[in-house]
Amino acid sequence: MERELKGEIISVGSELLLGQIANTDAQYVSQRLQGAGVGVYYHSVVGDNPTRIKEAIHAAQKRSNVIILTGGLGPTADDLTKEMLCEALGEECYLHEESARRIRAHFEKRGVEMPESNLKQAYFPRGARVLQNDNGTAPGMLFEKDGICYIIFPGPPSELLPMLDNYAMKELQGVTGNIITSRIIRMYGIGESQMEVYVKDILEKSLNPTVAPLIGDGDVTLRITARAESLEKAREMIAPVESELHTRLGEYIYGYDNDTLESVVVELLKRNNITLATAESCTGGDIARRITEVSGASGVFGYGFVTYANEAKRDILGVDEEILKNHGAVSEECARAMLKGLINRSGADIGVAVTGIAGPTGGSAEKPVGLVYIAFGDNEDVQCIRYVLKGNRARIRRSASMNALNNVRKFIINKYEGK
Amino acid sequence: MERELKGEIISVGSELLLGQIANTDAQYVSQRLQGAGVGVYYHSVVGDNPTRIKEAIHAAQKRSNVIILTGGLGPTADDLTKEMLCEALGEECYLHEESARRIRAHFEKRGVEMPESNLKQAYFPRGARVLQNDNGTAPGMLFEKDGICYIIFPGPPSELLPMLDNYAMKELQGVTGNIITSRIIRMYGIGESQMEVYVKDILEKSLNPTVAPLIGDGDVTLRITARAESLEKAREMIAPVESELHTRLGEYIYGYDNDTLESVVVELLKRNNITLATAESCTGGDIARRITEVSGASGVFGYGFVTYANEAKRDILGVDEEILKNHGAVSEECARAMLKGLINRSGADIGVAVTGIAGPTGGSAEKPVGLVYIAFGDNEDVQCIRYVLKGNRARIRRSASMNALNNVRKFIINKYEGK
Repeated sequence: MERELKGEIISVGSELLLGQIANTDAQYVSQRLQGAGVGVYYHSVVGDNPTRIKEAIHAAQKRSNVIILTGGLGPTADDLTKEMLCEALGEECYLHEESARRIRAHFEKRGVEMPESNLKQAYFPRGARVLQNDNGTAPGMLFEKDGICYIIFPGPPSELLPMLDNYAMKELQGVTGNIITSRIIRMYGIGESQMEVYVKDILEKSLNPTVAPLIGDGDVTLRITARAESLEKAREMIAPVESELHTRLGEYIYGYDNDTLESVVVELLKRNNITLATAESCTGGDIARRITEVSGASGVFGYGFVTYANEAKRDILGVDEEILKNHGAVSEECARAMLKGLINRSGADIGVAVTGIAGPTGGSAEKPVGLVYIAFGDNEDVQCIRYVLKGNRARIRRSASMNALNNVRKFIINKYEGK
Repeated sequence: MERELKGEIISVGSELLLGQIANTDAQYVSQRLQGAGVGVYYHSVVGDNPTRIKEAIHAAQKRSNVIILTGGLGPTADDLTKEMLCEALGEECYLHEESARRIRAHFEKRGVEMPESNLKQAYFPRGARVLQNDNGTAPGMLFEKDGICYIIFPGPPSELLPMLDNYAMKELQGVTGNIITSRIIRMYGIGESQMEVYVKDILEKSLNPTVAPLIGDGDVTLRITARAESLEKAREMIAPVESELHTRLGEYIYGYDNDTLESVVVELLKRNNITLATAESCTGGDIARRITEVSGASGVFGYGFVTYANEAKRDILGVDEEILKNHGAVSEECARAMLKGLINRSGADIGVAVTGIAGPTGGSAEKPVGLVYIAFGDNEDVQCIRYVLKGNRARIRRSASMNALNNVRKFIINKYEGK
């Protein structure tokens, strides 16, 4: 196709209209289509109703040439998407032997006999490129007719997403003649709007590669997406953009693609063969939870303490009664004493200790809700930073955890990797 | 309105078409509309394009009598939703003084001068019922014309949701003549499909009140929603249904409405004036994190230990070297020893200790990934349950935490409240 690609997504399912789930399918597919150079102009949602499904298809045919349908591929008589599309196109369906075999195998693996109704999922029009479903029974398909490319996907995101990324994008590249690849840059310690100020010109002029925040990810991110005739070429196009972003935003960048702050910290600990321990008050175990969420953390993390009560800070970490009395549990003195006790108690190479007021109660004029002290370092060198974090209880706790991890990350890079 | 209410949601915003965010606005509005007795038959999404917005409105007018528009109410020239709706209806807009005042106050509170462009958000057609925005500058509105009810909402969910629940539903009740209220029942220890088997007849025949799972909530839930001419009447209609669900599912029900397992546990601890401590291996601090997520947990939770390494189990909790050698860290013996050490160390009234294999590595034929021992109890009475949990690392850890909390909940109810 050399003409402009205009995309449109029709999602079928009463669970969407009932508000039981959000239409994340449309979101995922839109992201990928945009990356593939297909502009998306419409989303629509209709129920499992034959007339409304067909009307939606007819409306789409008048204005779009890449039409995606999601949902309604189940085995029951209510599942009508493929049937209505074929009816709209005047195509008959035939048994696709490989799909039938796969569906049978899916049931056999679970020791269940395949209900005959499932066989309907293996029927496709001649010329359809069937998209394998590795996580369920309903295959998808890509079908071209009269200059329009139709793609159908099963509704459950756990089936749609892998099918989209592992099979459909390749088929779509056959239609568009482009290979798409992207690189996600992850930042911490900078707000999204401030980040955008630094790279405004790049965001505005970016066409191929495109550069845009990956919103809704929970992180401050930029995604560079390039399309080219080969993967190699696409990667070559990404490199200079990535390098420019690094020049401007390097101090905030902690990782790439699927990295998380905790996975980067665990990787740094492993690489430098050092161990970490945690002492948490207001974060209540969240830092330890994040660290141990990373598979293989056991090699570098052995001890975590949630010293929520003053007595726990005293009994477990040996924080001096005088410090608690004179400065209070939320103080630089207490954070430093927690860290010292933590390293003594655990024998870890480095430690991080957090104490603060997560709210909503417990704040005062002198020590407001959001006041958090984070101490980090080792036997030789301890730093402590005072924060006043914004938001509700959950947000303050999350920010405190993320700042703790980011400080540990910078400490290791600085001390052990000399950067 | 006595006729059938047919709803439709038009969302405006290129961030949706670019896949930057999922259309949760449509989800929230759909849920509320269904609850209010308005059937929702279509969702659509268009970009900030005057022609496409007007076309979507015209299509909606042919088939729906409750038309909701979300997004595109910002102060810029790109924000066109209200303008296009008024053009489609042939209505002129006038300055709504109260809204202008509120928008100005919004900026003043932040010490910023209001850009003149924001004043456009305060213009509405005569007869519009303006919906106050407590979390941003763009008010919404409800407007009736020629038997169709139009409602417009700002796009950001943080603005839309409170406006929907605090202002729009009341106005909509004026249109439909109904008051809506609902009650959520929260369960643990039963799968969703199994739960549905127990109440299949109720789910199928439910009309008013409706009974349906609140999908996507992360819990197994049932929501009872009644509509009536008064709140009192609606509550009266809910009571017998709730009672019947309790008869059938009581042993799995842990809470209602906004309860979480952790908030229920904290409440039980407070009510019985007892304290809890945690010792975690595979959950890595997640149980402590959940407990301390509840505001006021400090009164009942003082000590948590993340003994991820064998040495930590030995040094901190006093688990016998022999137990670790002969039975391993993932064993009933170890879980029980952890619990004993935990209660000694912390002085808490009751404790919970978790040890297991979260995977993906570390499993064996004898001790597979997902094997988790949870010990819980007090100085007099310790129980230990063996689980083989399913799923990936994150899911196994979550299940282990939830089971730990549920066991603590049942232990307290049993021992302290004699149920």
